[in-house]
Amino acid sequence: MPEQMRHIVLASRPTGAPNDENFRLETSDLPEIGDGEVLVRNHYMSLDPYMRGRMDDAKSYAAPVPIGGTMEGGAVGEVIASNSPAFATGDFVFGMLGWSTHGKAKAHELRKLDPNIAPITTALGVLGMPGFTGWYGLTELGKPKAGETLVVAAATGPVGSMVGQVAKLHGLNVVGIAGGADKCAMATDVYGFDACVDHRAFESARDLRAALKEHCPKGIDIYFENVGGKVLDAVLPMMNPFGRIPLCGMIAWYNAGGLGADAATEAITGPRLWRTILVNFLSVNGFIISNHFDRYPDFLRDVGPQIAAGKIAFVEDIAEGIESAPAAFRALLSGGNKGKQLVKVI
Amino acid sequence: MPEQMRHIVLASRPTGAPNDENFRLETSDLPEIGDGEVLVRNHYMSLDPYMRGRMDDAKSYAAPVPIGGTMEGGAVGEVIASNSPAFATGDFVFGMLGWSTHGKAKAHELRKLDPNIAPITTALGVLGMPGFTGWYGLTELGKPKAGETLVVAAATGPVGSMVGQVAKLHGLNVVGIAGGADKCAMATDVYGFDACVDHRAFESARDLRAALKEHCPKGIDIYFENVGGKVLDAVLPMMNPFGRIPLCGMIAWYNAGGLGADAATEAITGPRLWRTILVNFLSVNGFIISNHFDRYPDFLRDVGPQIAAGKIAFVEDIAEGIESAPAAFRALLSGGNKGKQLVKVI
Repeated sequence: MPEQMRHIVLASRPTGAPNDENFRLETSDLPEIGDGEVLVRNHYMSLDPYMRGRMDDAKSYAAPVPIGGTMEGGAVGEVIASNSPAFATGDFVFGMLGWSTHGKAKAHELRKLDPNIAPITTALGVLGMPGFTGWYGLTELGKPKAGETLVVAAATGPVGSMVGQVAKLHGLNVVGIAGGADKCAMATDVYGFDACVDHRAFESARDLRAALKEHCPKGIDIYFENVGGKVLDAVLPMMNPFGRIPLCGMIAWYNAGGLGADAATEAITGPRLWRTILVNFLSVNGFIISNHFDRYPDFLRDVGPQIAAGKIAFVEDIAEGIESAPAAFRALLSGGNKGKQLVKVI
Repeated sequence: MPEQMRHIVLASRPTGAPNDENFRLETSDLPEIGDGEVLVRNHYMSLDPYMRGRMDDAKSYAAPVPIGGTMEGGAVGEVIASNSPAFATGDFVFGMLGWSTHGKAKAHELRKLDPNIAPITTALGVLGMPGFTGWYGLTELGKPKAGETLVVAAATGPVGSMVGQVAKLHGLNVVGIAGGADKCAMATDVYGFDACVDHRAFESARDLRAALKEHCPKGIDIYFENVGGKVLDAVLPMMNPFGRIPLCGMIAWYNAGGLGADAATEAITGPRLWRTILVNFLSVNGFIISNHFDRYPDFLRDVGPQIAAGKIAFVEDIAEGIESAPAAFRALLSGGNKGKQLVKVI
């Protein structure tokens, strides 16, 4: 019996948090590959918060995944068939190969990986889109200056941990926010943050703010924004004049289609946000890293040696088996993971 | 009987729109001037929307005017006494001399004007803070590119008219928003905008948006924000990817202390604003021109010749007598003026 592929399709659009019925594991024959195409056996696939947006039928920077379509996402694996001179069987590659045991792609859509330089999983995390997102957002949009104070939430995630570590290398006071005492310990002990505040320990934005103030006595110059919600509410009044807010996510609001209502959300009215930006001369910049791939070589040149030298750490959280992806994704949205969430496909 | 000064003090803090009881005209002796100080007889004083913010007791970029204190503001006039070698009696100057017939200032706080180069009133408008605000916000933060589309509200005001005219010189499609058919005619006929939409003709943000779409078939690349409210609500969904929003005011919300609630405001939730910035990769920059006076010579070098050549037009609206200032200011906030609002003090 020939090898078959297993892949997870979007069975229905979630309302709020995704549940098991929104996904379906399907089995099908391996795809034929055309001229210039490559077939990959995935080893690891990536789970990232942005995927929640793809499940909604709302105008965004990318089209939604169609109902019945395979969930999109990055993966790393091994070439098992190639109709392109650029790739040979046995090559390791990164590509947007989906929540799937196999994927085909055009040669130009794949990037070759050298497993002797770094484990292939790093192409999904610290050396991949999340790490690149943190590095680009901080250095290009955050414009860090030594002595300033930076706050980043989801501090132990692959974006937040990169942001904090690069900021430390720039000489900033770095304060993380994370969910739980164990993650906070990871932020300071593994990633070298100056402090980390457990947002779960504070019911209200006001109390969270009071805790932040202890570690940010001179206010906040850079708020690297990836969560929205209560954290944004806590941080806003602490922003210093000429502060910068690189904005690459709002995970707290994703399950509500980006328009959720909770206690914090009600406090964050449009006029309040606008007034804060105005009277503090803030610079708020939305971005998605896929618009900036031209800077990827700069990122590798800057960060690669720091990782090799042990000055930038990374942690991976690996779920076993493609069938574990929906539950692992749900856990990711509620902060159940530690470090970069991967799924080991084989 | 020696000459006395008349000045308008803040009698009480307004709730909502200011009324007559919030102001009081007082008469007092002319101030003594100390070493290095200069006494000025004001000819014209400026009325600007930002002054509404100074009447509130809220944290902002400047301290509020104290109760009983003279209202702050720019003025131009003639030196009538000087204890500084930098100024002689008869010199014309600009300074933050307040809502007053006279004002004293330190020499370094005044700027000498040459009435042979331009009428001294222009130092309060087209060549002063409003014109400079429009020029700086557009060129530095808006980053205009030929062929793009710009929208600016309060299009016939001294900021908006500068923004639109400089954008036209950069080759943009320029669409104004103004209150009333006569102002819209002024935007196109006097200032050369490609089109202008009368926001008073549309009850809802949705209808205003539909009208804007006729003139912005390729969406909006730069929204120069000075009003907030219904206009912001109309514009937000029309922003193109990589759009820029220089933010220097939110006049529609000023009378509510910047935190007002109206139909538009309720639609502009924090998450909606945040999501729009994120998914369209927008750059939103709050600014106040007083932080950028180092660029003032560049502004004069760029814009001065355009005014001299008749390529940048300006309109002044002059109220007579200092006692007319409160009513003229109220009218300014509700859009009753045409062009730069001044008060002729003598």
